[in-house]
Amino acid sequence: MKGLFITIEGPDGSGKSTQIKLLKEYLENKGYDVVLTREPGGTHISEKIRDIILDKENKNMHPKTEALLYAASRAQHVEERIKPALNDGKIVICDRFVDSSIVYQGLGRNLGIKNVYDINLFAMGDIIPDFTLLFDIDMSVAKKRKENRGDLDRLESEEDFFHKQVFKGYKKLKNLYPDRIKVVKADDSIEEVHERIINIIDEFLER
Amino acid sequence: MKGLFITIEGPDGSGKSTQIKLLKEYLENKGYDVVLTREPGGTHISEKIRDIILDKENKNMHPKTEALLYAASRAQHVEERIKPALNDGKIVICDRFVDSSIVYQGLGRNLGIKNVYDINLFAMGDIIPDFTLLFDIDMSVAKKRKENRGDLDRLESEEDFFHKQVFKGYKKLKNLYPDRIKVVKADDSIEEVHERIINIIDEFLER
Repeated sequence: MKGLFITIEGPDGSGKSTQIKLLKEYLENKGYDVVLTREPGGTHISEKIRDIILDKENKNMHPKTEALLYAASRAQHVEERIKPALNDGKIVICDRFVDSSIVYQGLGRNLGIKNVYDINLFAMGDIIPDFTLLFDIDMSVAKKRKENRGDLDRLESEEDFFHKQVFKGYKKLKNLYPDRIKVVKADDSIEEVHERIINIIDEFLER
Repeated sequence: MKGLFITIEGPDGSGKSTQIKLLKEYLENKGYDVVLTREPGGTHISEKIRDIILDKENKNMHPKTEALLYAASRAQHVEERIKPALNDGKIVICDRFVDSSIVYQGLGRNLGIKNVYDINLFAMGDIIPDFTLLFDIDMSVAKKRKENRGDLDRLESEEDFFHKQVFKGYKKLKNLYPDRIKVVKADDSIEEVHERIINIIDEFLER
C-alpha cells in the first residue's frame, strides 16, 4: 500500500467531525490527496446497512446482529473504497473504524474483545490503520455537547449505563494497541485540539 | 432445548418450498406445534437485511459483505424467533440455514468453509440443527424449474459458473456432516419425495 490510513476514534460528542474537517484542509494545503470517509457507511451498500443499524425502530436488535452488521458494512467499505484509495497513494481519514466495534460491541455490549476482533479481521483483511487518533474527553463534557444536537440515533439514544461502558472501553483501548493508538486530549478549544493533532500527524509524516 | 430444529437445504428449484408445506401439514396432523420460517429473513430486522442481500441493484457487493450479512440476519433470527420456539417445545422447520452459507459463500464465492463456519458459529451460538434434509437434484432439472419462475433475485440471477460451484458444494456438504445431514433424492414426483421425507422424519421422531 502506497497511501496512509488514519482512523479517528472517540465517544460521541468528542468533537471528531469538526477536527476531521480541519485535518483534511491542513493535509490538502500540504499537497496531499485526502479521502474523508466514515463508518458505518462510506459506500452505497454500507449506507444501506447503516440505516438498519441506526434506525430507532430496530430496538430489539441483538448485540451479535449489530456486531455482524458493522463488520458487513466495514468489509464493503474496505474493498470498494479504502483499499483502492490507498493503492492510489491517497491519505484516507476514516471517522470510526474497527476500534469502535471493539469498544461498542466488544465491551459496551459485552460480546468480548476477541469475538468482535475475529469477525472484523475477516471483514478487514490486511487493511489495518497506520495510526489512530483517539479523542479523550470527559464524559460530562461529551454528554453536554451531544445534548445540544437534537435528534439521536439508536446507539446515541442508548441509556447511560451503555455509554459508561463505552467510556470505560475507550480507556482500555489505549492499552490494547499502544503502538497504533495516539491519544488526543479533546476537551479544550477547537484550535488547541487541532494543534495537538497536527503535531502528531507531522511527526508521523516526517518519519 | 425441548423442541426440534429441522433445516431444509438444497439448490434453488429443488422443490423445497412445496415439500416444506406438505411436511408442516403432516406434522400438525400428528399433533405437533410447528413453526415454519426461512432464511435470509424470519424477523423484521432479518427481512430488512434480506432486502439488501437480494437486491439486484447491489451487484458490486463483496463476497465477505454477503457472508457477514447472512450471518447478521441469522443471529437475529436465532435469538428472536428460533431459540424461543425451541424453548417452547415446538418443531421449527427452517428453509435454508447455516449450510447455505457454507455452500454459497464458503464454496460458491470461494471464501473457505472454515472462515464462513466461524462467523456463523458466532451468529448461531449453540443453536445447531437437530437434522437437515438435503434435497439432491440434477442441475438441469433444477435449472428448468427455476426458469419457469420469472423474476430472479441477485443470487438466483448469478451466472452458470457460480451455480455449478454451488452444486459441487452441495455434493461436498453431505460428507462434511454425515450424522446431521439426510440426503433426499428430489427429482421425482411431489408425492414420492414427500414419502421419502416423512420416512426420515418418522424414524427420527420414534427414537
